[in-house]
Amino acid sequence: MTRNSDWGGSDALAARLFMTRAHSQELAAPLSAEDQCVQASEDASPTKWHLAHTTWFFERFILEQRLPGYEIFDPRFNFCFNSYYETQGARHPRPQRGLLTRPSANEVRAYRAHVDQGLHHLFASPESEAAEVLKLIEIGINHEQQHQELLLTDILALFACSPLKPAWRSEKIKAQGDAPALTWSSFEGGVVRAGHDGERFGWDNEAPRHDTLLHPFRMANRLVTNGEWRAFMDDGGYEKATLWLADGWAHVQKEGWRAPLYWQETDGGWAQMTLHGMQEIDAAAPVAHVSYFEADAFARWAGKRLPTEFEWEQAAALSGANDEDRPAATLFTPRPAQGQGLVQMFGDVWQWTQSAYSPYPGYRPPEGAVGEYNGKFMVSQQVLRGSSCVTPQGHSRLTYRNFFYPWQRWQFMGLRLAEDA
Amino acid sequence: MTRNSDWGGSDALAARLFMTRAHSQELAAPLSAEDQCVQASEDASPTKWHLAHTTWFFERFILEQRLPGYEIFDPRFNFCFNSYYETQGARHPRPQRGLLTRPSANEVRAYRAHVDQGLHHLFASPESEAAEVLKLIEIGINHEQQHQELLLTDILALFACSPLKPAWRSEKIKAQGDAPALTWSSFEGGVVRAGHDGERFGWDNEAPRHDTLLHPFRMANRLVTNGEWRAFMDDGGYEKATLWLADGWAHVQKEGWRAPLYWQETDGGWAQMTLHGMQEIDAAAPVAHVSYFEADAFARWAGKRLPTEFEWEQAAALSGANDEDRPAATLFTPRPAQGQGLVQMFGDVWQWTQSAYSPYPGYRPPEGAVGEYNGKFMVSQQVLRGSSCVTPQGHSRLTYRNFFYPWQRWQFMGLRLAEDA
Amino acid sequence: MTRNSDWGGSDALAARLFMTRAHSQELAAPLSAEDQCVQASEDASPTKWHLAHTTWFFERFILEQRLPGYEIFDPRFNFCFNSYYETQGARHPRPQRGLLTRPSANEVRAYRAHVDQGLHHLFASPESEAAEVLKLIEIGINHEQQHQELLLTDILALFACSPLKPAWRSEKIKAQGDAPALTWSSFEGGVVRAGHDGERFGWDNEAPRHDTLLHPFRMANRLVTNGEWRAFMDDGGYEKATLWLADGWAHVQKEGWRAPLYWQETDGGWAQMTLHGMQEIDAAAPVAHVSYFEADAFARWAGKRLPTEFEWEQAAALSGANDEDRPAATLFTPRPAQGQGLVQMFGDVWQWTQSAYSPYPGYRPPEGAVGEYNGKFMVSQQVLRGSSCVTPQGHSRLTYRNFFYPWQRWQFMGLRLAEDA
Amino acid sequence: MTRNSDWGGSDALAARLFMTRAHSQELAAPLSAEDQCVQASEDASPTKWHLAHTTWFFERFILEQRLPGYEIFDPRFNFCFNSYYETQGARHPRPQRGLLTRPSANEVRAYRAHVDQGLHHLFASPESEAAEVLKLIEIGINHEQQHQELLLTDILALFACSPLKPAWRSEKIKAQGDAPALTWSSFEGGVVRAGHDGERFGWDNEAPRHDTLLHPFRMANRLVTNGEWRAFMDDGGYEKATLWLADGWAHVQKEGWRAPLYWQETDGGWAQMTLHGMQEIDAAAPVAHVSYFEADAFARWAGKRLPTEFEWEQAAALSGANDEDRPAATLFTPRPAQGQGLVQMFGDVWQWTQSAYSPYPGYRPPEGAVGEYNGKFMVSQQVLRGSSCVTPQGHSRLTYRNFFYPWQRWQFMGLRLAEDA
Repeated sequence: MTRNSDWGGSDALAARLFMTRAHSQELAAPLSAEDQCVQASEDASPTKWHLAHTTWFFERFILEQRLPGYEIFDPRFNFCFNSYYETQGARHPRPQRGLLTRPSANEVRAYRAHVDQGLHHLFASPESEAAEVLKLIEIGINHEQQHQELLLTDILALFACSPLKPAWRSEKIKAQGDAPALTWSSFEGGVVRAGHDGERFGWDNEAPRHDTLLHPFRMANRLVTNGEWRAFMDDGGYEKATLWLADGWAHVQKEGWRAPLYWQETDGGWAQMTLHGMQEIDAAAPVAHVSYFEADAFARWAGKRLPTEFEWEQAAALSGANDEDRPAATLFTPRPAQGQGLVQMFGDVWQWTQSAYSPYPGYRPPEGAVGEYNGKFMVSQQVLRGSSCVTPQGHSRLTYRNFFYPWQRWQFMGLRLAEDA
Repeated sequence: MTRNSDWGGSDALAARLFMTRAHSQELAAPLSAEDQCVQASEDASPTKWHLAHTTWFFERFILEQRLPGYEIFDPRFNFCFNSYYETQGARHPRPQRGLLTRPSANEVRAYRAHVDQGLHHLFASPESEAAEVLKLIEIGINHEQQHQELLLTDILALFACSPLKPAWRSEKIKAQGDAPALTWSSFEGGVVRAGHDGERFGWDNEAPRHDTLLHPFRMANRLVTNGEWRAFMDDGGYEKATLWLADGWAHVQKEGWRAPLYWQETDGGWAQMTLHGMQEIDAAAPVAHVSYFEADAFARWAGKRLPTEFEWEQAAALSGANDEDRPAATLFTPRPAQGQGLVQMFGDVWQWTQSAYSPYPGYRPPEGAVGEYNGKFMVSQQVLRGSSCVTPQGHSRLTYRNFFYPWQRWQFMGLRLAEDA
Repeated sequence: MTRNSDWGGSDALAARLFMTRAHSQELAAPLSAEDQCVQASEDASPTKWHLAHTTWFFERFILEQRLPGYEIFDPRFNFCFNSYYETQGARHPRPQRGLLTRPSANEVRAYRAHVDQGLHHLFASPESEAAEVLKLIEIGINHEQQHQELLLTDILALFACSPLKPAWRSEKIKAQGDAPALTWSSFEGGVVRAGHDGERFGWDNEAPRHDTLLHPFRMANRLVTNGEWRAFMDDGGYEKATLWLADGWAHVQKEGWRAPLYWQETDGGWAQMTLHGMQEIDAAAPVAHVSYFEADAFARWAGKRLPTEFEWEQAAALSGANDEDRPAATLFTPRPAQGQGLVQMFGDVWQWTQSAYSPYPGYRPPEGAVGEYNGKFMVSQQVLRGSSCVTPQGHSRLTYRNFFYPWQRWQFMGLRLAEDA
Repeated sequence: MTRNSDWGGSDALAARLFMTRAHSQELAAPLSAEDQCVQASEDASPTKWHLAHTTWFFERFILEQRLPGYEIFDPRFNFCFNSYYETQGARHPRPQRGLLTRPSANEVRAYRAHVDQGLHHLFASPESEAAEVLKLIEIGINHEQQHQELLLTDILALFACSPLKPAWRSEKIKAQGDAPALTWSSFEGGVVRAGHDGERFGWDNEAPRHDTLLHPFRMANRLVTNGEWRAFMDDGGYEKATLWLADGWAHVQKEGWRAPLYWQETDGGWAQMTLHGMQEIDAAAPVAHVSYFEADAFARWAGKRLPTEFEWEQAAALSGANDEDRPAATLFTPRPAQGQGLVQMFGDVWQWTQSAYSPYPGYRPPEGAVGEYNGKFMVSQQVLRGSSCVTPQGHSRLTYRNFFYPWQRWQFMGLRLAEDA
């Protein structure tokens, strides 16, 4: 999961750790105890569960092992808040996470405080010098960041089910004019390096860095917009079987899909549910909440295709795109493109690629429980690249591989077109 | 639903109304906002939903119609809190009641206060003299009492799913010795009167009072106990197909039933989840949380049968049993039999009968929305008689007809044996 | 199942037996081996299975027990052709009956011949004097007659799924003018006798003959017609929730019902699939293939109700209706009413009653395997009375109780209206 | 689908065509009309359907378009026997193919004869000179060969459901001693050419031939055997969650898998259902009927991995393996390895690879209906390479890409291990 690296020292790590821990609390702050408890669907988890599970991760894998004299907050929580670690014993069934009205939101807050205090003690102890501990802390930070994104997508899923359509944070989104014209950047083929080099933190599934062969391709300068998606819909995109993968078409029929998730038809148009409540649709903003099936059908309709994950990585590398450049989020919704060149590589929507989620050449999952983190999902899913408007600052990078099933769409997922050169 | 009757005057009715309204709040008092929000299963509803729905009933069917100047608390609540009244428009889907994190428990409390105030105003107005209004108030009281029982059975269903096994109210149940010996009372056959005479309140499905023909029968003096149920289990009751109705056997196989709902095997025995948390099983107490399928199989195993609903009613009438005699509940769990003669007719567990839930001769559902209350469920369900340890005081009576599907068992359901004389 | 009785002697019984056995073959004669093999749905069984299962019944319950030296045709058939007798061991799963391509139709024919020969030997032996044997033969005849009816309803279900819409027997049905006007016969209330008296053959579920109490009622002279059903449809019968039982309405929504089973919309009208292929709908003929849910909704729409099974039996008894009077079938489809008084009590469609299928007072299932025949289905089903156009001659009678789930409609099921007097 | 090529002339093509057509009939010859009609599962199709669908392909795409005066055999067959061509209109639902008792096996034979005659006329006409026609004929041959394999796997699926366990062709399989020791061949990395060059026939999904980058690897000399699979089972392979992909483990739990499909536990061992009936398991023969999930778990247990499809292709190319070398099948079951070097590349079981089924760089589906043949399935499936014991002679090749979902196992599917060099 992590390779030999310079973590910037224990102090810097501690600072990042406690900022991350605090940020989770801030995301939950607008939510009532009830909002935090309920599970919108089997895909989603309750806010409280995210807050407790990320805490359990630090307690189980670090404090219990490494902090002498640490007292487990409540031994029953191992059963409640283990997600899917088969090595860590029996656990509460995933579809029933929303039934955990106890422990309460307050008790989970106390649990967090208890574990945070343990982490403070750890940093005050000689253990905090151990490279293995620092690596686990780094993993814990990144793990919690992932759950911060899920917390937001899951609360959106919950609020979208409510007849009251509540906003996580009220805000009026204003449309900001037209999207820039679609243009194409060309890239050469050849053997290039891809994947994570282990210098800084990266997940195990991004490694090892390895040679891969590209064929010449072109990449769109920006993401596909809501306006372009409307054109697809208006052209009968959801009714033409021949635009779709067979599995996708079966899904469209069965689920009655006719627009992206969270779009609702209104008198004379469409609106969409967002973290800021129901909003008009901004034609210039990137389309979000579309499945791989839909992204693939759109690309076929447009006479283009989705990029591979390596095309995406190479284009991002050459254009100098970087998740760290983007401004701290104030709006939690995708925004229209700005600037020149390849834009919107990070910070708006995760971008579906045509690459199935498979191991890289030479990939080996780490030993122990963290080895269950990524490797066991390497079948039947598709890779998404970039990051989204709800990805925490500094969490993503060029080599980051997100992955979901081709029918899932409750994440902030969109697409960028590519074509053969 | 109600027939010409003497309601005891508007003041007495108002007193009962506000006591009933307050009692709902008391039942919810031990529960956190989270506990009140979550839905354990499709059969069950959240506490908050019960509190709001019963309130909506008064607002929708009484205040909106009858109180001049009444202001609807929130017009969106009609969508949220309508249960199944087709005449009252579209509504939130039943399986998603637990997704309603908004309105909050506090807002629902405010809703209740608003409607209670409206009801106070109504009683201060000339409208409270109108017979039709008084009838609707009476219905509203009885409706809310039914939901008080459901509130408790549903919170038990929720807490039983929790790995923490919380108690609604902590209490240690002590076993109290042996059950009295099983004896049999004989009853003659002949044409008898059954059903509600309309003198006081009764649901529409209890009427009209009518002649029915009984054949001579005998009825057990008490309910079947946990100890007797253990004997059935130990004798392989859940493994012998020939003891079961075909549908019942299919259910046993599919669901893996091998004990009543809420029983859990422990080292060397069985315990059960109750409203007072996990408890030892009292062999002398009546068995609860068994389905019709199980009750029927037990009776066959015992060489007896279940009574018909008219046998039950006649036996109760002749033995002078009465729901109003039983003491106010302090424990919310069935208790061992005490006394002589036919005992435990009310106040421990609802008693499955072999009668399918069908209309009485001459039955007509009332006009309007309340006509949807009972009649539309008259197929595929079985009648239960008596009342349970969580039925509100004064709610049940000799002619009361409860009804559930033969596989349901989350209510406090048990059985009493009968046989042909 | 059978009570003390005069069977008309062993010779007459033998004659009926072999005529019944031959009739099954005649019903299958128009069908190819493929037609006989396939299972249309979980409710239906293949023709070949019916032919073999009825044969297994004679082999298993009679020849194996009573004919010295009888050789079992193939010991594996006990597994293949046991329907649901838990006492008779493991068996092939019901939903997979259509996967039994082996034994072939020819082998099943040989199986039938082998068992018929065994039955001939039995009649030539002293065993045929034993009352118990004669009773079992009688049961076997009636059992096979039931499967003759199922064979036809199941082949119709199969052919209705075929894009080629084959006819079991080609025939052009001609409409024959108007139905007679609807009139009402009045019947008094009081205690009457109902159920089978045991003089001749009857199923166990028809007994014991017992007193039952009727309330005054009126019964329609004839069955509800296709034309009347069209009026119900045209009046939005399938779209008005308030006409339906709650379970029925849920079913209508889920299944998309908007007409009886086998009706197909055509340019400007409706046609229906029958055993004689696709036919125009005769407005004067009785409606068939409607569920209890639909029958109940129709009755509510018409301002009437369905009769109870005892009202039906009493009306039939007093009007002198008798299944044996009807002419041998030449058309296998319901026909318009003819004559005066209460007509169409037998021979067109089974008639839904509002009576749930429950045991009669004093009912006891017989000992042994035949005890599984009827009793174990006594929950969640509704009683139908009369007989249908595909019921074998002489099979039904005044006291006959057919039973199906309220959503089933692949049998020839219709309705007759009743009302309180 | 086909590229510019030399087809060996119209006469040779005609010879291959009619041999292929005749071979389908031979495969069906041991089967009764019933066997040919029934559908074992949604994945499988009836024999008769295969025979008719392959015929429809020639009629619909060639004779109707190209043979002047050709008379369609039965216009209703377009509805019955279209598989999944959205461009060709509405069609009979896949899960109901087994309900098509009509047309009969005899009629389908007549249909085949009619179309064969049409094809003879076509070859006698100038149309047979048209390159486009020849290409379509070639596609039709290959299409029918694919269905020949499916016909056999589907009849095995059907017979495995039968309590009689019939053999498609009776044969006693004899175990032939030990498997050769497992050895490893090393292969260099680098950019290599992969995919079909268009010289002879190939499916569209094998093209275009393109550069791909290999990393050094080693490949096992032979397939994994039944004996090795037993060792995996005996070591608790089906019980250890950590050996499995998460989706795979969920599948194992849900389906209760504990051995390959068609294995049955016997007294003291295991037997397996085959096309030759129930047989002892030959420890030296390759394991068959395992899913991708199982193959992947086995490889993890063995400390190895599955090869990529390009590793497989390169290894096969360098070792000179060729589907055309293998002897004509006499046994339709996988056989123990014989010979030196990389063996069993073709003719025993299809070999799961770790490559997801995706388009090659530059892939374009052909225009028209044949464009639906492969491209629309390019998601969520895994590539298998080689060929199986039931693949028709001459059908497969080095570049052939078979594909199935990771849970499917009714095909002759097995595995060969690989590892990083």
